[in-house]
Amino acid sequence: MLPAAIATDRLLDLLGPEQVRTDPESRYLASMDNLRFSRLPAARIFPADESAIRTVLSLANEYSVPITTRGAGSATTGATSPLEDGWVLDLSAWKQVHIDPVARMAYVQPGLTLAELDAAAAEFGLFYPPDPGSREYATIGGTIATNAGGMRGAKYGVTRDYVLALEGFLGNGDFVRWGANLRKFAAGYNMRDLWIGSEGTLGIITGAVLRLIPRPAHRCTAIAVFASEAEALSASHGLLLAGKTPSALEFIDRLSIESAFAFWQRTDPQTLAALPDCLRHWQTNQEKPALLLIETDGPHQDAQAQMHAILDQIAPLSKGHFEATDPNTTAQLWKVRRSCSQAMFEWGPRKLNEDVVVPVDAQLELLRFVDGLRQSTGLATPTFGHVADGNFHVHIMFDDRKPETVEAARRALHSLMEKVIDLGGAISGEHGIGLAKSTFLHLQHGPAEIAAMKAVKHALDPAGILNPDKIWTACDTSAAPREAIRLPWDH
Amino acid sequence: MLPAAIATDRLLDLLGPEQVRTDPESRYLASMDNLRFSRLPAARIFPADESAIRTVLSLANEYSVPITTRGAGSATTGATSPLEDGWVLDLSAWKQVHIDPVARMAYVQPGLTLAELDAAAAEFGLFYPPDPGSREYATIGGTIATNAGGMRGAKYGVTRDYVLALEGFLGNGDFVRWGANLRKFAAGYNMRDLWIGSEGTLGIITGAVLRLIPRPAHRCTAIAVFASEAEALSASHGLLLAGKTPSALEFIDRLSIESAFAFWQRTDPQTLAALPDCLRHWQTNQEKPALLLIETDGPHQDAQAQMHAILDQIAPLSKGHFEATDPNTTAQLWKVRRSCSQAMFEWGPRKLNEDVVVPVDAQLELLRFVDGLRQSTGLATPTFGHVADGNFHVHIMFDDRKPETVEAARRALHSLMEKVIDLGGAISGEHGIGLAKSTFLHLQHGPAEIAAMKAVKHALDPAGILNPDKIWTACDTSAAPREAIRLPWDH
Repeated sequence: MLPAAIATDRLLDLLGPEQVRTDPESRYLASMDNLRFSRLPAARIFPADESAIRTVLSLANEYSVPITTRGAGSATTGATSPLEDGWVLDLSAWKQVHIDPVARMAYVQPGLTLAELDAAAAEFGLFYPPDPGSREYATIGGTIATNAGGMRGAKYGVTRDYVLALEGFLGNGDFVRWGANLRKFAAGYNMRDLWIGSEGTLGIITGAVLRLIPRPAHRCTAIAVFASEAEALSASHGLLLAGKTPSALEFIDRLSIESAFAFWQRTDPQTLAALPDCLRHWQTNQEKPALLLIETDGPHQDAQAQMHAILDQIAPLSKGHFEATDPNTTAQLWKVRRSCSQAMFEWGPRKLNEDVVVPVDAQLELLRFVDGLRQSTGLATPTFGHVADGNFHVHIMFDDRKPETVEAARRALHSLMEKVIDLGGAISGEHGIGLAKSTFLHLQHGPAEIAAMKAVKHALDPAGILNPDKIWTACDTSAAPREAIRLPWDH
Repeated sequence: MLPAAIATDRLLDLLGPEQVRTDPESRYLASMDNLRFSRLPAARIFPADESAIRTVLSLANEYSVPITTRGAGSATTGATSPLEDGWVLDLSAWKQVHIDPVARMAYVQPGLTLAELDAAAAEFGLFYPPDPGSREYATIGGTIATNAGGMRGAKYGVTRDYVLALEGFLGNGDFVRWGANLRKFAAGYNMRDLWIGSEGTLGIITGAVLRLIPRPAHRCTAIAVFASEAEALSASHGLLLAGKTPSALEFIDRLSIESAFAFWQRTDPQTLAALPDCLRHWQTNQEKPALLLIETDGPHQDAQAQMHAILDQIAPLSKGHFEATDPNTTAQLWKVRRSCSQAMFEWGPRKLNEDVVVPVDAQLELLRFVDGLRQSTGLATPTFGHVADGNFHVHIMFDDRKPETVEAARRALHSLMEKVIDLGGAISGEHGIGLAKSTFLHLQHGPAEIAAMKAVKHALDPAGILNPDKIWTACDTSAAPREAIRLPWDH
């Protein structure tokens, strides 16, 4: 028997089959995240309490079994793909939440979803701003492990900005607490922020204290259409320069919107027919047009005043705009943006999903470069993004049944990452590295930086128990097979 | 010759006497920070450029000379006290600043003061919120090394919330960059936030990219007086619960305000005479009264509307308030708060200056405990604080010419720290540990946490070159002699 098999048997003896699942389906469902890169673990563990986690860690150390902690598995990078024959520690059932409305803090367990947290906060008039596209599914633990962002980053920041304290386990089984339920803390090294974004490689998060803010009373949403990407970016930069900070400022390119149109044409023609005129007629207007989806928030009149000032300012650059005046049209405008991610499969059965960031003054060059990739490869490259952050989701669509497009996509991805670094950007703004971007880490960080980071990993997890092949071990998943499985967020 | 002396001679040969100062005055002035705990270094080094820092690090490693990096030396914890015969790396002359108004970022060198940065940002209508009391002197480098806070933390956060990227040197001489001039970054471990607040023990910061925000157009200031500390806290908590977030909410206790009154009576009776009536007559009102200094900010009408809503809400609890309506009276109200720190020497020639934090629901218990310390020791314990953060500056005044008060102060400090931990608080909210709080670190963090932090220190500075005796080496400075020197911020 292999050590992992012996360890799993002992774990079963200690914790029982309710907590330690070894049936094929449990293992398969825990074998991947949204990257759909599958590696079968020896067990999927649902620990009942902290004592069970201590038991897991004790045996993992004794038998050198790697542990991958998991929430919903909505990560896009393979960070939640376990190691073959390792253990998956599933905390998705750890869902307690307590809101303290005076301190404006939430005490949460890691399995709570963002949507569940925000609903709990809303009962007290409070707000938890981070909102990645996966907010209905993504768990607090996973979003802390990746430092998830979302559309409201430019105004409200990212996950890191809302984490006051974390508690959980080091790889050696020690229970630790970093930070406190306090708004200021300056005692010792900031290990809390080191855990945030470390993708389960430095610790197992079992609890968090999160900062909440007063809930904006009102939101206004509008969409503006531009004849060119350059004009859309110029409008966005003008807003920043003028001191305006919309709560969302989403750039959407022609390929993204056309995929949404094509998707609705096929599946839901009524949605298409109900779109505002400026949007419906816009699609055929120009060669390289773009949209900005704009949201302001605040007290009622303030949100409206902000929106009107924004629309006034960008009017000379735009070809028209549409302001939502009721919940239905607001939902419709957001549907345009939220549909893009799935609708772009109209362009090909498979995508490389990147979340690069570039400095403000390099945004247009990035978009032109992506368009060049599209032309040279013949692959669709629908792109949208959080433009006030410079955080663009560039997608490279291909067909994995055609080897030449697989290779073209892989080459395009490599040139994209090199270009992003040339522009002074980041290979990931909010997804993290996981496996999918591990081959590009050396572009982002020099040898001294990587050596320092690896020294920290070794210092905090000397036995290499915690999600050991992520971030630091180059693994090219771009052309690897993907599981044909329907995940909860597919639509 | 000792190795440090040989190393200093070689450094002098390589960099020359302009960069390497070994005269007694230079060394003495670099021998302490605002804690005035002096240890003479072998040299005070003013590096001309990064190449000079490389030379310094190379020799420091060869001869095992410890390096303490220094800005203005306004730290209150001895974090900037060098090691005897070590080197002080003085970066106070590194003052370059460049503002990018579209990206809303500042590119700064570490020697720039906060006031200089904020003035540069103001030219573009931008704002850098962190404002410790020492903002006229404190440098960017020092405030990053301590994660400095200030009065606007509850609304705007602390230094950490505004640092996008850091660059500089590891102890081994490697140049590294953490983060980027980007608002989102999720590639590799977050070493940036590990450096922030690490008090010069993990790296030498030579440059930073800071996030700026639109400058609030208007500020409103008011002061409210309360018959009891309980009512002042109740008013403050009511504001938080109602979703109100003033840009400052400063609690000031009776001893603090009386020290300001006594100081002005002696040095500046006109200031005293010009105080608003509610304040002047308030002092004799009650046994344990307290003040709240309140500031709101935002667009003109919004700041006023916020202030009026706040004053309306707290009116049933307060004994009166005074709203400043012009720059003169605004300055006068702030002078009340800003004078306390120095004026409290009216109560004794020496103080222990603490910056503890407690959870919202433990604030009153902390204040009652401090009053108990005052009664049991007979020492004055003037206390003010950033009440929306729970961050209280508790001072224990004593006379170091009277051994019995020295011992009483030391005992009071120990019980204060134990109480703060009992209440779930932090021994430091914004000053950091340095030397002054090193003996209390084990109260804040358990052995597993301290072991993990020390492992990180060892991983990133295996030779132990960087400010090695800070944070982790217990050193009781509470009763140690202080230098009788006039520092720039004394008044």
